[in-house]
Amino acid sequence: MTTETLDATEIPDTTGLLIDPATAALLFTEARTVNGFADGDVADAQVQAAYDLVRWGPTAMNTVPLRILLVRSPEARERLAGHMAEGNRARVLAAPLTVVVAADTDFHEHLPRLAPHMEGGRERFAEAGTAGRAPMATQSTNIQIGYLIVGLRAAGLHVGAMGGFDHAGVDAEFFADNGWQSQLVINVGTPAAEGASRPRQERLAFDEVSATV
Amino acid sequence: MTTETLDATEIPDTTGLLIDPATAALLFTEARTVNGFADGDVADAQVQAAYDLVRWGPTAMNTVPLRILLVRSPEARERLAGHMAEGNRARVLAAPLTVVVAADTDFHEHLPRLAPHMEGGRERFAEAGTAGRAPMATQSTNIQIGYLIVGLRAAGLHVGAMGGFDHAGVDAEFFADNGWQSQLVINVGTPAAEGASRPRQERLAFDEVSATV
Repeated sequence: MTTETLDATEIPDTTGLLIDPATAALLFTEARTVNGFADGDVADAQVQAAYDLVRWGPTAMNTVPLRILLVRSPEARERLAGHMAEGNRARVLAAPLTVVVAADTDFHEHLPRLAPHMEGGRERFAEAGTAGRAPMATQSTNIQIGYLIVGLRAAGLHVGAMGGFDHAGVDAEFFADNGWQSQLVINVGTPAAEGASRPRQERLAFDEVSATV
Repeated sequence: MTTETLDATEIPDTTGLLIDPATAALLFTEARTVNGFADGDVADAQVQAAYDLVRWGPTAMNTVPLRILLVRSPEARERLAGHMAEGNRARVLAAPLTVVVAADTDFHEHLPRLAPHMEGGRERFAEAGTAGRAPMATQSTNIQIGYLIVGLRAAGLHVGAMGGFDHAGVDAEFFADNGWQSQLVINVGTPAAEGASRPRQERLAFDEVSATV
């Protein structure tokens, strides 16, 4: 599953968890960002399996604003690659599958179904306009991206996420008509036998990221 | 683990996943947002177990910008409650533990250690200023919030996340000196025997959130 072995001192203690060590390793502790993928397709059904798991994760007012564009045709890959930062272009062209994850700023259209308890929600968000809806859509989508990365790994897939691209260019290229706003581009597949990932870097420890009042 | 039984038609098919159905249920498919918690403390060690799992999730350039303020003292709870939307105040005062999750806009100070391959990264981000660093910190923090919610559930905890609060007020109250920017307030604990969660609402299906080009 990984191209490197963890240093023993870095293997987290999972005794405080209800999930087993193999699952912890699959989803987090041994999972690695992958830049070099093995040949082979990623089926829609694999991405759907991931989504069908993680769509149950909480979002603001149950807005569920994450959207997924699967970039499959050679022509669409070229169009996307043209908006990527230089260092990410070859990756998009080479990956088994690349998805653009976007926030739907028209999420309010689904509120009567997704949040029936919220009377008049659709109308209030319609009045707020795209600029008024974008912050909530963006935040919940990025939280859902966290779930999605976990879900793709749960489905046996590996990811390489890229923030380096022209967001406005991607939106004009693919989302001119539907209110989606691109957040992240993610390559998806299985790791190449060699050179799939960079050497693992450390993370901040709990006492470095937390405080108590 | 939940206060309601899933409708059979809503139980996701986990055959496409490498994790077992009980784990899928724990992390996503049966997990519920909790607003009514049982009495009892949440130890620092439980939150740390969640963080120690999810800190391995990917962030932009390995910036790891998520920060956690554990709000424990009665006085600090009152200070936080004063910045919450009306409907969230009583929840903050009643929860076993409330955490404010924040983005560290000074994440660049750690780059020589977290991203040693990125020569001059700390200096470039220092020049960008807080406003220049905030978007990257905010996006990666929200992705990490997705991981953290999964991690808290993996540690046997339940969460009730709240976006309805005065972000600038919370930042002035708690983060005037450290560059943290509040993103979400999360109540943490175990569900009350009755009335822990609202009736479950549906989610958008894969074909409603995805498109292929």
